[in-house]
Parts: sequence; structure tokens; C-alpha cells
Amino acid sequence: MITHTVAFRLKHPKASPAEIAFLKDAVALADIPGVQDFQRMHQVGTKADFDFGFSMRFADQAAYDGYNSHPVHVAFVQERWLPEVEAFIELDYVSLGEDG
Amino acid sequence: MITHTVAFRLKHPKASPAEIAFLKDAVALADIPGVQDFQRMHQVGTKADFDFGFSMRFADQAAYDGYNSHPVHVAFVQERWLPEVEAFIELDYVSLGEDG
Repeated sequence: MITHTVAFRLKHPKASPAEIAFLKDAVALADIPGVQDFQRMHQVGTKADFDFGFSMRFADQAAYDGYNSHPVHVAFVQERWLPEVEAFIELDYVSLGEDG
Repeated sequence: MITHTVAFRLKHPKASPAEIAFLKDAVALADIPGVQDFQRMHQVGTKADFDFGFSMRFADQAAYDGYNSHPVHVAFVQERWLPEVEAFIELDYVSLGEDG
């Protein structure tokens, strides 16, 4: 099981309609085959300059690859993520031991 | 519910006894009152230069504060984290909506 996470900061003003729309529209990612436990979060820690986070889980690398290449994901990255996200960090996790 | 996460890179060589000992000894954090769902993970994403992650959940900020000030946590930070960790990023999450 792979947990894919991304913490990010938007170009939009806080609580703006554009911010709200981005977070709302991202829910479309949850319906891509292979995506489990999709979550949208606020990043509330004061030690990192990111305001939001998404997380999702994949059963294996094949499911993750299928998500990455899925047209809904590719379109979201091109049409929403790249133009609207100011900065981000991606962190992907497997439980210790699970990967040998 | 607050999910506290930290991704990090150790000063130790990969798979060294010192690395293994650090990851093993960190389990002591799981026994601090208020800590839920403590997990140790490998960070397997190629876009960030961190090798490991810890995550844990707290019911509320009071539980999180209690963890931060607990002697076991304070000792771990001083005696293990600061001398052995080369770089890290802390990200804390609450579900969208949960924080109003």
C-alpha cells in the first residue's frame, strides 16, 4: 500500500472563490480507478509554508501508475494544478517493513 | 483530529546499525499519552530528498501540546532527533471542514 501525499500553496487569496473552486474540483481525482481514501486537508503546522494537502492510497505501484496516466489526472495537472499552485512538496509513503 | 507528520533524512548511512537503532527507538514516542496511530514509514517518492516519515494523530491541540512537552518526547528530540537527523519537514493536517 502506497500513501501518496502532496502539500501545497495556491496562488489564490485565502478563502477566495478561486481557492474554494480548486479544492472542490479536486474531488474529481477521488473517482479515478485505484484511488482509495482520498482526503483534502488543511496544513495547519506553522513550520512549513503550505496551506493544504491531498492524500490518497494505492494498493500497489501499478494502481499509482494508472492514476498518474489517467486522463482525468493529466487534465487536472495541466488545467488546474500547474496554473493555480504556487508551491508544493510530494511525499509518498509505505509502512516500514512493507517494502522489505 | 490533527495528523502530525514529519519527513526526514538521517545523517547515518543507509541500512546502518545507527539508522536501524534510530527507527527502532522512535517507537517509544507511540507510548506518550495522546498519541494515536503512530506509524513509521519509508518515503519512497523521488521528488523529495527524505527517506523516512513518522505520523501520528491527536484528538485535539491539547493532546498535541501534551505530547510536545512530554519528557519522553523532549528527551528524544534532544538526544536523538537533533544529533541524528540531517533535514526534515513537518506537516500537520486537519480534514477540510473539520477546522471550520
